[in-house]
Amino acid sequence: MTLTEQNARTHRDVPSRGVDHPDLVRRFLDVRESTDALTQNLEPEDFVVQSMDDVSPTKWHLAHTSWFWEAFVLSEWIRDYKPFHPTYHYLFNSYYVQAGERHCRAQRGYLSRPTVAEVQEYRRYVDSAVAELIARDPHGERDPALAQLVELGMNHEQQHQELILTDLKHVFSVNPLRPTYRERRAGNGSDATSAGNSTAAIPELRWVGFEGGLVHIGAAGSGFRFDNESPRHRRFLEPFEIADRLVTNGEFLEFIEDGGFRRAELWMSEGWAQRESQGWTEPFYWERRDGAWWSFTLSGMRPLVLGEPVCHLTWFEADAYARWAGGRLPREDEWEAAAETVPVEGNLVEAARFHPVRLASTEGGSGPVLRQMFGDVWEWTSSAYSPYPGYSTPEGVIGEYNGKFMCGQFVLRGGSCATPRTHIRPTYRNFFHPDAAWQFSGLRLARDPR
Amino acid sequence: MTLTEQNARTHRDVPSRGVDHPDLVRRFLDVRESTDALTQNLEPEDFVVQSMDDVSPTKWHLAHTSWFWEAFVLSEWIRDYKPFHPTYHYLFNSYYVQAGERHCRAQRGYLSRPTVAEVQEYRRYVDSAVAELIARDPHGERDPALAQLVELGMNHEQQHQELILTDLKHVFSVNPLRPTYRERRAGNGSDATSAGNSTAAIPELRWVGFEGGLVHIGAAGSGFRFDNESPRHRRFLEPFEIADRLVTNGEFLEFIEDGGFRRAELWMSEGWAQRESQGWTEPFYWERRDGAWWSFTLSGMRPLVLGEPVCHLTWFEADAYARWAGGRLPREDEWEAAAETVPVEGNLVEAARFHPVRLASTEGGSGPVLRQMFGDVWEWTSSAYSPYPGYSTPEGVIGEYNGKFMCGQFVLRGGSCATPRTHIRPTYRNFFHPDAAWQFSGLRLARDPR
Amino acid sequence: MTLTEQNARTHRDVPSRGVDHPDLVRRFLDVRESTDALTQNLEPEDFVVQSMDDVSPTKWHLAHTSWFWEAFVLSEWIRDYKPFHPTYHYLFNSYYVQAGERHCRAQRGYLSRPTVAEVQEYRRYVDSAVAELIARDPHGERDPALAQLVELGMNHEQQHQELILTDLKHVFSVNPLRPTYRERRAGNGSDATSAGNSTAAIPELRWVGFEGGLVHIGAAGSGFRFDNESPRHRRFLEPFEIADRLVTNGEFLEFIEDGGFRRAELWMSEGWAQRESQGWTEPFYWERRDGAWWSFTLSGMRPLVLGEPVCHLTWFEADAYARWAGGRLPREDEWEAAAETVPVEGNLVEAARFHPVRLASTEGGSGPVLRQMFGDVWEWTSSAYSPYPGYSTPEGVIGEYNGKFMCGQFVLRGGSCATPRTHIRPTYRNFFHPDAAWQFSGLRLARDPR
Amino acid sequence: MTLTEQNARTHRDVPSRGVDHPDLVRRFLDVRESTDALTQNLEPEDFVVQSMDDVSPTKWHLAHTSWFWEAFVLSEWIRDYKPFHPTYHYLFNSYYVQAGERHCRAQRGYLSRPTVAEVQEYRRYVDSAVAELIARDPHGERDPALAQLVELGMNHEQQHQELILTDLKHVFSVNPLRPTYRERRAGNGSDATSAGNSTAAIPELRWVGFEGGLVHIGAAGSGFRFDNESPRHRRFLEPFEIADRLVTNGEFLEFIEDGGFRRAELWMSEGWAQRESQGWTEPFYWERRDGAWWSFTLSGMRPLVLGEPVCHLTWFEADAYARWAGGRLPREDEWEAAAETVPVEGNLVEAARFHPVRLASTEGGSGPVLRQMFGDVWEWTSSAYSPYPGYSTPEGVIGEYNGKFMCGQFVLRGGSCATPRTHIRPTYRNFFHPDAAWQFSGLRLARDPR
Repeated sequence: MTLTEQNARTHRDVPSRGVDHPDLVRRFLDVRESTDALTQNLEPEDFVVQSMDDVSPTKWHLAHTSWFWEAFVLSEWIRDYKPFHPTYHYLFNSYYVQAGERHCRAQRGYLSRPTVAEVQEYRRYVDSAVAELIARDPHGERDPALAQLVELGMNHEQQHQELILTDLKHVFSVNPLRPTYRERRAGNGSDATSAGNSTAAIPELRWVGFEGGLVHIGAAGSGFRFDNESPRHRRFLEPFEIADRLVTNGEFLEFIEDGGFRRAELWMSEGWAQRESQGWTEPFYWERRDGAWWSFTLSGMRPLVLGEPVCHLTWFEADAYARWAGGRLPREDEWEAAAETVPVEGNLVEAARFHPVRLASTEGGSGPVLRQMFGDVWEWTSSAYSPYPGYSTPEGVIGEYNGKFMCGQFVLRGGSCATPRTHIRPTYRNFFHPDAAWQFSGLRLARDPR
Repeated sequence: MTLTEQNARTHRDVPSRGVDHPDLVRRFLDVRESTDALTQNLEPEDFVVQSMDDVSPTKWHLAHTSWFWEAFVLSEWIRDYKPFHPTYHYLFNSYYVQAGERHCRAQRGYLSRPTVAEVQEYRRYVDSAVAELIARDPHGERDPALAQLVELGMNHEQQHQELILTDLKHVFSVNPLRPTYRERRAGNGSDATSAGNSTAAIPELRWVGFEGGLVHIGAAGSGFRFDNESPRHRRFLEPFEIADRLVTNGEFLEFIEDGGFRRAELWMSEGWAQRESQGWTEPFYWERRDGAWWSFTLSGMRPLVLGEPVCHLTWFEADAYARWAGGRLPREDEWEAAAETVPVEGNLVEAARFHPVRLASTEGGSGPVLRQMFGDVWEWTSSAYSPYPGYSTPEGVIGEYNGKFMCGQFVLRGGSCATPRTHIRPTYRNFFHPDAAWQFSGLRLARDPR
Repeated sequence: MTLTEQNARTHRDVPSRGVDHPDLVRRFLDVRESTDALTQNLEPEDFVVQSMDDVSPTKWHLAHTSWFWEAFVLSEWIRDYKPFHPTYHYLFNSYYVQAGERHCRAQRGYLSRPTVAEVQEYRRYVDSAVAELIARDPHGERDPALAQLVELGMNHEQQHQELILTDLKHVFSVNPLRPTYRERRAGNGSDATSAGNSTAAIPELRWVGFEGGLVHIGAAGSGFRFDNESPRHRRFLEPFEIADRLVTNGEFLEFIEDGGFRRAELWMSEGWAQRESQGWTEPFYWERRDGAWWSFTLSGMRPLVLGEPVCHLTWFEADAYARWAGGRLPREDEWEAAAETVPVEGNLVEAARFHPVRLASTEGGSGPVLRQMFGDVWEWTSSAYSPYPGYSTPEGVIGEYNGKFMCGQFVLRGGSCATPRTHIRPTYRNFFHPDAAWQFSGLRLARDPR
Repeated sequence: MTLTEQNARTHRDVPSRGVDHPDLVRRFLDVRESTDALTQNLEPEDFVVQSMDDVSPTKWHLAHTSWFWEAFVLSEWIRDYKPFHPTYHYLFNSYYVQAGERHCRAQRGYLSRPTVAEVQEYRRYVDSAVAELIARDPHGERDPALAQLVELGMNHEQQHQELILTDLKHVFSVNPLRPTYRERRAGNGSDATSAGNSTAAIPELRWVGFEGGLVHIGAAGSGFRFDNESPRHRRFLEPFEIADRLVTNGEFLEFIEDGGFRRAELWMSEGWAQRESQGWTEPFYWERRDGAWWSFTLSGMRPLVLGEPVCHLTWFEADAYARWAGGRLPREDEWEAAAETVPVEGNLVEAARFHPVRLASTEGGSGPVLRQMFGDVWEWTSSAYSPYPGYSTPEGVIGEYNGKFMCGQFVLRGGSCATPRTHIRPTYRNFFHPDAAWQFSGLRLARDPR
């Protein structure tokens, strides 16, 4: 398939998620309820803990997302809006400097109050106010800007849904009791491939070739997108090949056994320095017990399943693996061009697995087909997170949403097993620092044609 | 009064708290219940937070004190004792290296599990086992060593009762919502002297003189004492004078207003370095709002009451204040010699004020009388915490209780408003690092005779 | 001018600095002597100091560049080569992990020995051996690989010539005595514009437009280039405009006076965090004394000359300035496309000014012309330092030269007043972390066409 | 010998080193010349390096001691005294806060200027001025305060003589070339006992008993003493025993081989924490090479000599060793009471060995005799460095000399192989933090009578 064909597909396939959808109230409440649903089995104590600076307590996520609605929607659109509590503006602003002073990020775990019950009351208060506000103009006819902000607020809430899961995973992982977030469901994808038959072959990696040339990158159409996906613009790509599936635990284990964590020549200089100072010898959440590998999951400790996609890699590890394997990480424009050729489907949060799953055996077919492009794990790319040509930050406080982070981070693509289906798309750009590993992050190989 | 007379009084006044007391079971259960009583108004979330490394979560205190009984009593005296949970030994050992690996102190706030309810169940399990064990030998006749350990366990528990209060105070203080631990009681000592009439004169400081000479220092008699109070031994004291009351907030405010926090010549070199790097400009928990001084208490924020004893001082601050005031801190042997001349009574935890109180006006009388020697605030001394001549650590793991901390810390005397009455005595040696301020710590002046 | 025209010029203008130049010995010795010439007025004590981790002592630079010849040339090409000293391989390896253990970078200032005289003897030893080796095959006919390595060694040496100057500037700057490296020459460019007439107008900034389109980026031809300039490849550029001159001190001062260092919305999030933690309020080496601005130079403290290019900016500051000014930093491909339209000339190290100079008044002419593209200050670009498509690291130890740093840094272009003329070219990619300011680093604005 | 006898001896034995000695000029110049003599074989580069925060460059010591004379003598006693250089007051003030702003201690190694030659010129300038000043009143008749300050200045200079040696030892030790400060002299005490015969028996440790009782501690008489040795006062000592010699390398090696560095129960809690974080496994300057122990000395690397006193111990190590050996460190009053029974003689700096020496075999004699009390190594005591009863700091800036360090440090007694003979006495109190090891610090055991 040529990239020109791929680009042509874009306009057909992206669903029209227009901001003037008639059931905006319903969609709003659905998103809010989805957040709460993720926390329903927790104990009050579980909502409080911040196990490292990057992690926020579940309680904080519940409150911060509510603050977002108060600060950017309710306070702007409702005359004399009365905030739920005068101090919450200070407590639950994350990083919006222009919105005023805020509580120190590293101290979110020091707050025993407000209690979980109080935060839930806060959420209901905000839900009512927003729903009522939207209902006044259900078709976004009077004020498209409001409808756009509601879309942004829902997407923001979905980002925190994913963070609730990854942060809880970290909180539980540092507890020697190793609590379980959700029991593994009988019959889900991984079950059939658990330790017992984990050595069953998974499909051999095959390469999908692209001709490159002049392509369009970035979001088009009228659906919601974050500012960092714009503007759509042209790029010239050299020909490239990309793997038809994700790298697996088994493959990553070969890298380890071949001395991957001991060979400096495979690593970026800063990655090697961190590896040495932090003592990395295997991926985050892996543990060696009596000669066998285990990994911590949201369903507790499990023997490592070799066929599952490798997960919780830093960019440094993904990059070193790719070099070892004779390939490289894809650039984000290559990934996007490739992703536009396949449907947006996969092991996303709705599957309620909360863990990447082993690829089923190859269906019969003539040539290689891109699989696992969406869901399972975010795929590290080799692209530093930078503004697109012509990018400009939105006016006002909301301009701090994405633009000010375009430095020192790398782009990830494709969503994970913790990402909502309505949240992901080919043009979506996630970004983390190269030493971050607590997200569901893995990799897919790319290479230059031989 | 001569010191010889003072020493003579010792043997009359120290109550005989023998270890073979018939109601040991009752006393044991009382101590345990007192711990729980301190936590009864808390929310589950309040039990989880560790707001700095020195602070432990309330939940941890509840569990650690139970572990102490398991590790030092139940596991030793009950054949085939079955611990409540296999991992708790690892989670709730504080610092006993010889007892095996333990959870990192700085990460006690990362544990959402066990839940509060589970920890309370753990306490009941331990209570039953210990009570049953004691009941087998209620008079300590068969095994004095057991009775001694039970006494140690109760005193250990009392130490953690005080820490529960000081740690919760810190947890609440860093929360911008400034929660209240316990509403201030109507009619308690401080109420009558609250902000409104806080300028009412408090008694002028007067000096009580002691002749010095050869005195006995350290615990005597058969009552319980910690190892660090032994052995009783002789010291030669030069003549000294000691203030009849504690230094007040009002007096400390004069120090501040006279530039006390800006004049390096008043400070120890290390204290000054810390003052500069930490930006100390007033005592811990003091806050300046719109030109007025407030302080955080277990009953929330209150206007500073000038007549109350100054509290939450570091040793560095107490030492600098004393130098500024033309005096010095008492040495611990001077303090002890003086304290043995007065009864052990004062504003202790049983008063349920959880805060130092203003001194009532001087009763009519001929000469100055030592007051506030016990309760209100721990009094910093100028004495580094060192072993007494002839001191030796107990055999075994319990030997780590006190001895290994005899380096880099200073001795405090007299107990505070968070100390149980049965826990304090003239020979009691508390100790903290010179930069610690989260305890109820203040000072009393001493000086050489003019 | 269209970019097609620009690309066409490339092949005309790049001098053919072939590796088989007949006078390679002479060029080698010239480069080596140039290094020594930079240090001839120093005291022995000046060679020893490392004033921060990024800085190396002059003595170390002299020795390390000699080690480079030993490790990569002499040891490889001379059978039984006897190194000058057995420990120098350990002491003077900079970062080549595959070359074996090496001395800790942060401790280069802890070495009083070898003395300066011993290091100079080391240099002579190496000079003789390399010159003799080259002389055996002066035209590179027998072994082109040797000639290529000699070119690399000379370019490496030139990089350290620049570092000797920037590092000494830092060493002298932290000394309250503020020593002078070299007295300012009478009659050099800056003298005529010193403080007295520093307010004389400099040419108004004008924009030079480029049409963009498909261009070639990267080094072509047979001259020396670093691996990171390869391979030459195509890129699609949107139309852009680029300023005809550098940003000046006077313009940067307006940014400061407009609150540029107090307005978070102008900064990248990480830049703002560093600004706050480090207390940045003006560029590195600027000082405010009695209401006037001064800056430290290699000729000592001087009143700030408003018309000179602003220098010693971090990337964060350059980026914030550009945002404030309504523009942006150029991308590196834009800069390169523009630079290929002008000759490689400017205020480089041969001018011996060791400081950027004020632009002369605009010569009469019809339209704007790009000036100051080479020399004066390295120009920060908005491009993260990444490998070009098709880039691969060289085989062996020398592969660590550039590739392992392609993460977390930004590209600078154009050379500075400390760069040798034969070292710079339009395709040259320098790179530093975004918080580095001790290099001669400034900026030129770019923008999207209006 | 009873302590009463010992105390009686004090007044006979302390030489009368009155401040009004007629040859004060000569003594002053001698002290100054001794400082320079220690540096005469160094290269200029050796004077510059600061290899850790605690270490100062030799050049700094030479300049700081000169500043001391300028700041405390010349500026006070000479009207219109013109300092040598206006900036030196800022550069070379060590820690006298009241004397004004000063250069950061940790950055003393960042100063390449003034050069060594300039500093030596500074010294001569100060020498002349002080000598001339003293000569005006050679007998201290007109102004005893001046003569007292000159004595203080000479003692201060002597302290820095010792530091020049210990600091250079550290500077050389971190250099992989391991330079030699001074070749080992043929025929000095250690030579006869070098590696070859290092296993020859040294005298078995014997205990010297003291009855204790009421003793006088602190300096008496009219000779010079530091303020921290005053006032002389009474103490009551329990009976004690003290070893007749220092602990040796061989004995310390037994401690290591018995797991001394792996057994937490032998250590203070803070010492153990440091041991773990710093990875201590043997004394500072010891190194294990191919199964044999070596140590770094001012004469370079040498095989460990088992019979030599163990040296460069931290207090934590000395304390742990003593506990392992079944003894304890002496208290400083015990040490002083014992030291007053023996003459002040030993391996001091005048012997020019710069290293502790092996004890000669026991001379025939009836009972044990205290040996090695002075010189060889400073002896750690168990006493925290605190003010004596009645201590008061001198008025003015000079009051910062000692008093402000009386917190967090431990007392050492007896001088070392780097201490001048006229500088040491039984009452002399040296003090360092418990983790300091770069001084010549060892230990002598004490114990309670059995």
